Amino acid sequence: MSIPIILDCDPGIDDALAISFAAGSPEIELAGITTVAGNVPLAKTTANALAVAAFAGLPDVPVTPGCAAPLLRPALHADHVHGESGLGGAALPAPRRSAESGHAIDFIIDTVAAARGEITLVATGPLTNIGLALRREPRLASWVRDFVIMGGSASRGNVTPAAEFNIWADPEAAAVVFGAGWSVRMIGLDVTLLARATAAIQERMSSLGSLGSTLLLPALAQYRDADDETGEPPVHDVCAIVSIADPSVFEYTPAQVAVETHGALTSGMTVTDFSASAAHNARVATAINAERFWRTVLSAYGSLPVAQS
Amino acid sequence: MSIPIILDCDPGIDDALAISFAAGSPEIELAGITTVAGNVPLAKTTANALAVAAFAGLPDVPVTPGCAAPLLRPALHADHVHGESGLGGAALPAPRRSAESGHAIDFIIDTVAAARGEITLVATGPLTNIGLALRREPRLASWVRDFVIMGGSASRGNVTPAAEFNIWADPEAAAVVFGAGWSVRMIGLDVTLLARATAAIQERMSSLGSLGSTLLLPALAQYRDADDETGEPPVHDVCAIVSIADPSVFEYTPAQVAVETHGALTSGMTVTDFSASAAHNARVATAINAERFWRTVLSAYGSLPVAQS
Amino acid sequence: MSIPIILDCDPGIDDALAISFAAGSPEIELAGITTVAGNVPLAKTTANALAVAAFAGLPDVPVTPGCAAPLLRPALHADHVHGESGLGGAALPAPRRSAESGHAIDFIIDTVAAARGEITLVATGPLTNIGLALRREPRLASWVRDFVIMGGSASRGNVTPAAEFNIWADPEAAAVVFGAGWSVRMIGLDVTLLARATAAIQERMSSLGSLGSTLLLPALAQYRDADDETGEPPVHDVCAIVSIADPSVFEYTPAQVAVETHGALTSGMTVTDFSASAAHNARVATAINAERFWRTVLSAYGSLPVAQS
Amino acid sequence: MSIPIILDCDPGIDDALAISFAAGSPEIELAGITTVAGNVPLAKTTANALAVAAFAGLPDVPVTPGCAAPLLRPALHADHVHGESGLGGAALPAPRRSAESGHAIDFIIDTVAAARGEITLVATGPLTNIGLALRREPRLASWVRDFVIMGGSASRGNVTPAAEFNIWADPEAAAVVFGAGWSVRMIGLDVTLLARATAAIQERMSSLGSLGSTLLLPALAQYRDADDETGEPPVHDVCAIVSIADPSVFEYTPAQVAVETHGALTSGMTVTDFSASAAHNARVATAINAERFWRTVLSAYGSLPVAQS
Repeated sequence: MSIPIILDCDPGIDDALAISFAAGSPEIELAGITTVAGNVPLAKTTANALAVAAFAGLPDVPVTPGCAAPLLRPALHADHVHGESGLGGAALPAPRRSAESGHAIDFIIDTVAAARGEITLVATGPLTNIGLALRREPRLASWVRDFVIMGGSASRGNVTPAAEFNIWADPEAAAVVFGAGWSVRMIGLDVTLLARATAAIQERMSSLGSLGSTLLLPALAQYRDADDETGEPPVHDVCAIVSIADPSVFEYTPAQVAVETHGALTSGMTVTDFSASAAHNARVATAINAERFWRTVLSAYGSLPVAQS
Repeated sequence: MSIPIILDCDPGIDDALAISFAAGSPEIELAGITTVAGNVPLAKTTANALAVAAFAGLPDVPVTPGCAAPLLRPALHADHVHGESGLGGAALPAPRRSAESGHAIDFIIDTVAAARGEITLVATGPLTNIGLALRREPRLASWVRDFVIMGGSASRGNVTPAAEFNIWADPEAAAVVFGAGWSVRMIGLDVTLLARATAAIQERMSSLGSLGSTLLLPALAQYRDADDETGEPPVHDVCAIVSIADPSVFEYTPAQVAVETHGALTSGMTVTDFSASAAHNARVATAINAERFWRTVLSAYGSLPVAQS
Repeated sequence: MSIPIILDCDPGIDDALAISFAAGSPEIELAGITTVAGNVPLAKTTANALAVAAFAGLPDVPVTPGCAAPLLRPALHADHVHGESGLGGAALPAPRRSAESGHAIDFIIDTVAAARGEITLVATGPLTNIGLALRREPRLASWVRDFVIMGGSASRGNVTPAAEFNIWADPEAAAVVFGAGWSVRMIGLDVTLLARATAAIQERMSSLGSLGSTLLLPALAQYRDADDETGEPPVHDVCAIVSIADPSVFEYTPAQVAVETHGALTSGMTVTDFSASAAHNARVATAINAERFWRTVLSAYGSLPVAQS
Repeated sequence: MSIPIILDCDPGIDDALAISFAAGSPEIELAGITTVAGNVPLAKTTANALAVAAFAGLPDVPVTPGCAAPLLRPALHADHVHGESGLGGAALPAPRRSAESGHAIDFIIDTVAAARGEITLVATGPLTNIGLALRREPRLASWVRDFVIMGGSASRGNVTPAAEFNIWADPEAAAVVFGAGWSVRMIGLDVTLLARATAAIQERMSSLGSLGSTLLLPALAQYRDADDETGEPPVHDVCAIVSIADPSVFEYTPAQVAVETHGALTSGMTVTDFSASAAHNARVATAINAERFWRTVLSAYGSLPVAQS
């Protein structure tokens, strides 16, 4: 029986790969996509979510836009990493439908409330929507089955030496999220930088029909992360969905994670205390079985109709 | 023709006096009350709003609770000022009805949207609900007729040397509110400390029937502000409503107001720049006609049924 | 018997007027001048101190330069207020001697130590030298007779809405100074903005020979403070010296003063707590007898040789 | 020809081992020791420096005390790590002499000035003395031959998840030091946690006469670092001296290091930017040859007279 999830995301190259994985995974049922400003502005993340969902064979999954800017700060994007469109070199067919008319936080609250204890909430962008939803409905934290983010780091950052992009882009929202009383499953740079689309993996992607040739490979080819000097880019966001589909891919260490919101140089850092004496509000992924990760991912990709054509 | 307002408040002694004024003023039509944690916790501000509305002859005005805690910080109350109940020594009949079932931010957004350009939004507590509503629906800022707060100071604070209580209690929400693109009419300590219920005023309140004897005087008698060593307490929140009912009571100076959210000693300060070169996001009340203020207030009080009994 | 003082300053127009007052006052004996970067860079404040001392008839008072930059921050000057030279439109004869070869903090420490309990230390610039001296020799705080600053404000600032220039220029040094265990006599904007060289005062200065025509009037004529739209500029620094020469000119209120070093908008604010319950580390000047102030100042000026020529 | 160094330290168990190494190393000439508050208060770090120097055969090296507290913050010690005396379980003979009468910053400035270009300055405690000296004499940065610290981390901290003790204890001084215009050679936790006194090393220490039995082993036996659950404690400070005596023990990566002074959770973090585009103010040790490290250390220890008895 598959696990219903809501994916709050900001596609974004790796978000696109994550949506595609969710579409193909037999373990995942995508109950809805919500979008947020992040890698690119909200209008683009929403359009990209619609386009990728349709391309990946999910033409009916509701896509509901959320916040166009962080809780307190101006919006900062990463189009130098993800390209002007947000999907690198991938040019997907324009979506035939529009986004839903409501707001992401209402969709999240209403959907989770209606299926209490069943929905796993996943966030792969800045945490603005999740933080806002928690402030509007604090009981959300007890109504989800699980809550998983791609974001943060227990060691060094990527957008600054201290901070990972998703947390850095909206540290106040992240602080709300980590303080909401639930346990955050944090899939951060500590493991996602080890989930790389190596040359061998990209070779295998080239056999995935138009999924590979139209989406995966052109998207990855123009992924311009500072961590990707090798041409073997990490696929951060995919890790978050895989962690739900196959719990054995990652190992976790309990920790107390707090978000620095006041530092002059460290704003957005996920300060991670692994000491036994600290209270724990998170399980932080600290190891990955990369071989199994890619086996799971490529298997799901291979099952998509668009991988056959 | 009276002006429809939504009052977002945290009763609170002076909020109670403000609701009573709104009930009695021929210029004001109270379209709804929303409540927020502030002077006392949310359950009490909501119960107090219901009780005061019923007592003041507004048994049907909808009262909708909002946020139980600030955007980012833990809730801090002022029950040392307002008493354990929040109404000082006033003991009103228990309300016969419950609060509305929705959330303050939805009530605010929906009501303002439905009557675009007509509603004046007034906040006399911490700005959590308003900030959250603006993040959920940024167009709110352009849909109101006017936006007025009791809060802040262009000179010294009250809860700290730098900060006034309402802003100090949720500075991040206040920062959202002052940055929302509208013009904030700020009725702060610069004028509200001059709107004092002097002995002469209290004498006149004593002729207002059970309004005076049950609500006004027992509430004021136990108001324990640090600024009230004289037994002549200021009635801060009433000023905000009066400023709508009678625009000539206050004089304003245009200013750029920013909220300090990072200071170690100054958190919640409304840093107010009156210089001509600064962009202006606020009109700051800098003078009050106190005689006219009390004439207006007492006239409205006198028109309430409960003032005759 | 006159009171020996060390003046730590950053001339600066009003510093120059303060040095001149010290030279003419029968109550003051200037044991030394130390200089600091502030209104203009250190090389200029030192040169100006030498030039003014010579002009005012103190050719032998030692002038010892100190810090060229604040404790932690880059140097920020106020040459838009004091002119490029630091003395507005005044052009004094070049000094015939050089500054002392040592460092201000050593001069201060050694001089105060040698005359324990006798020296009144006065600072009219950023507090970098004083803070550094206190860290080098913490006992300095108990060795002075009195410690007086021109700086800070218990209400609004000048360089920002929250901060006065001298504190804003080096808030960390100011924090050291206010926390050193002595009582700071703080002559801030609350009173110095009331010590203005009005048209009538300037008229009287015009009768002070070359003191008026070469120094006072041309300096004041080009003083470009934002607070001086009237052509009647305040003479901040003079107040600090007058407070020693004639203690009855100012009234003081005990207070606990702390310096905001972390605020985004309030850095350098002297957060002043007058409440009775707070410990007190300062006496803050809160009232001035302006008529007596100018009588004292003009009398001292009139006694200078350069006022007769 | 040996290299003259000044060691600014806070003994401290590993400082004691570092002094002993300096005494025994043929490559090092200890021109002076200066002390600072850190692991334990200043009186104890000074007494410990005197005792260790005498014990290690350096009875005449001048020991000059410096600052008893950080630049801006209250003093925080680590006696839970280093024991109440600061030397763990080691009980050395009381020193027969007193410390020098001057101040550390004067000793450092004067000694470095007198031998310009020859002195290597080493700091193994909080950087208060060095920061203060740089503010008193900025040219110090250009007068040293080299400047080395034990402190900081490019990854995780020890006293907090973000900060290493020496930097955390006085972040403002560290900010001054990293911004002084010289190149800081930073020997931080990235390598010092790999310089551990393993069981095998401790076994070899047991053959070092009274050096082992009176100082090294009892000191290490009571070293209570959170990183030392294994009974194999790191000898952080020794690394800094070894890096001078044998440059081949460590490998370095150029970096721009900035110190977080404003973070709520990250104060004292050495934010380390290795990116090629950043300006570089430091060479950060990123690899250690631990075998060679211990060979060098034990060889020096073995040459001490006290190792033969």
